[in-house]
Amino acid sequence: MMTLLEGKTVGIVGLGLIGASLAAALRSRAVPLRRVGFDLSSDTTSKALHLGLVDVVAEDLHTLCNEADIVVLAVPVLAVPGVLAAMAPHLLNGETLLTDVGSVKGSLIAAVQSVFGELPPWLVPGHPIAGGERSGVDAANPELFARHQVILTPHEFSDFSAIETITELWQSVGADIQMMSVERHDEVLAATSHLPHLLAFSLVDTLAQESEKYEIFHYAAGGFRDFTRIAASDPTMWHDIFLSNDKATLTVLDHYIEHLQGVRKALQTHDGATLKQIFTRAKKARDYFSSILEQRAR
Amino acid sequence: MMTLLEGKTVGIVGLGLIGASLAAALRSRAVPLRRVGFDLSSDTTSKALHLGLVDVVAEDLHTLCNEADIVVLAVPVLAVPGVLAAMAPHLLNGETLLTDVGSVKGSLIAAVQSVFGELPPWLVPGHPIAGGERSGVDAANPELFARHQVILTPHEFSDFSAIETITELWQSVGADIQMMSVERHDEVLAATSHLPHLLAFSLVDTLAQESEKYEIFHYAAGGFRDFTRIAASDPTMWHDIFLSNDKATLTVLDHYIEHLQGVRKALQTHDGATLKQIFTRAKKARDYFSSILEQRAR
Repeated sequence: MMTLLEGKTVGIVGLGLIGASLAAALRSRAVPLRRVGFDLSSDTTSKALHLGLVDVVAEDLHTLCNEADIVVLAVPVLAVPGVLAAMAPHLLNGETLLTDVGSVKGSLIAAVQSVFGELPPWLVPGHPIAGGERSGVDAANPELFARHQVILTPHEFSDFSAIETITELWQSVGADIQMMSVERHDEVLAATSHLPHLLAFSLVDTLAQESEKYEIFHYAAGGFRDFTRIAASDPTMWHDIFLSNDKATLTVLDHYIEHLQGVRKALQTHDGATLKQIFTRAKKARDYFSSILEQRAR
Repeated sequence: MMTLLEGKTVGIVGLGLIGASLAAALRSRAVPLRRVGFDLSSDTTSKALHLGLVDVVAEDLHTLCNEADIVVLAVPVLAVPGVLAAMAPHLLNGETLLTDVGSVKGSLIAAVQSVFGELPPWLVPGHPIAGGERSGVDAANPELFARHQVILTPHEFSDFSAIETITELWQSVGADIQMMSVERHDEVLAATSHLPHLLAFSLVDTLAQESEKYEIFHYAAGGFRDFTRIAASDPTMWHDIFLSNDKATLTVLDHYIEHLQGVRKALQTHDGATLKQIFTRAKKARDYFSSILEQRAR
């Protein structure tokens, strides 16, 4: 059924966790696509080739663009403008589709407009809602996208067939597709991903400063482990994400700080009714979220 | 080797997750203790008896105190003063040991002082650092305490043999024992457990208010699931904990809000260097915490 991919070549730029996992998933599911990879680190490309994640490594972006029918940009968010500029002359043929995997879509659109002067029809931005504590090619996981969501944010001039092809690409590795506007994507991700990461980084750093030599962490329990797992993510990647999605993150961060001040006041005034109300509402919402995840797992 | 427990009777007051799991663990490890249980809910006591968690159900606290050599108080933190007052006449024989499992130790000490007018030698407060998303007798888990820490906070008049007996009780179900002052316990738990729960409840409630019908939760990923798991905990239990450990929680909450304001400012001024510094420090601390957990699991 995957007729739009048959016999084509996908070029993956950046073989970190997401890029390498996409390559691994395409291989493990025998998706009929030739896989060409590119990465600035020759260590990484050697490993990707050795592990059989890619069929061939492109020596440069020029070669990759020449060979690929579909280019997947899987580099850190702040590296996108430079990589786009380098690829621009080779993408202008209009036959190569371009998608990406970045956690922020507004900055990708801005970079494309700045490099190409327009939003080309062969551009379909995307964002797989998947990741992990570990990063890099060694963490490649062929099941990373299975039953996970990929949000596509096509723009008003995106080719319909380009949207179809990118949809098939992600469906072929087991993902579910959601369509959303760029603005809504960045708001939703600020709330459900970027803010939680900010809070976790901030909590762990606060506690590290509470006690000498991390002594306090010796008494932390399983709940704390889960709560801070996301603070083990790659600092550079998150630095890029926050600087790229600063406005939406600030908006929801301000809502959060306001909420926290309310909780603080209830605590200080021993207003147990308000605390219980908040906790009960939160548990109800969390239980709902849990039920979504259970349904999805089935 | 468990000579201090041999032939004795333990009375467990409150057969929620912790009380029922202690009973289950004592049974599953064949610890030579008779197990008497008490709970206000007859549904709960029937189940505990039916599942074989307890050998016998006490009809009232008077009976339980009469039968038990060791009483384990496993009721919500704010229920402690009332239960203590009801048990007081039967504990005053001085032969029954008393311990508890509460997440706050300062309020337990205050309740004991208020009911008994002193800190009796047969009191050894305790706190198993263990729990779970589910609560109640149905969630009883005999392995809940295995390789988990139990913090004991004996006071200056606690009998040495009482401390030894309670230590053996928890070691017999696989726990590691830590000794700590009441004040330090409440500070450490405020930072590593109470604050994270407050932040998680607050985040989930903030997001629930961001979108109609929880729509936003449909786009949340695995990291968000982990981050908010603790917001599914029992609201009443946490209401009690926060009202009992308000001072230590407020102190560390204020440190956290101050830290968050610094992060907010860095975000607003696009101060990437500060953001990366914070994230890198946090990742280092989180990786250290991760290594503690790995060592413990071995």
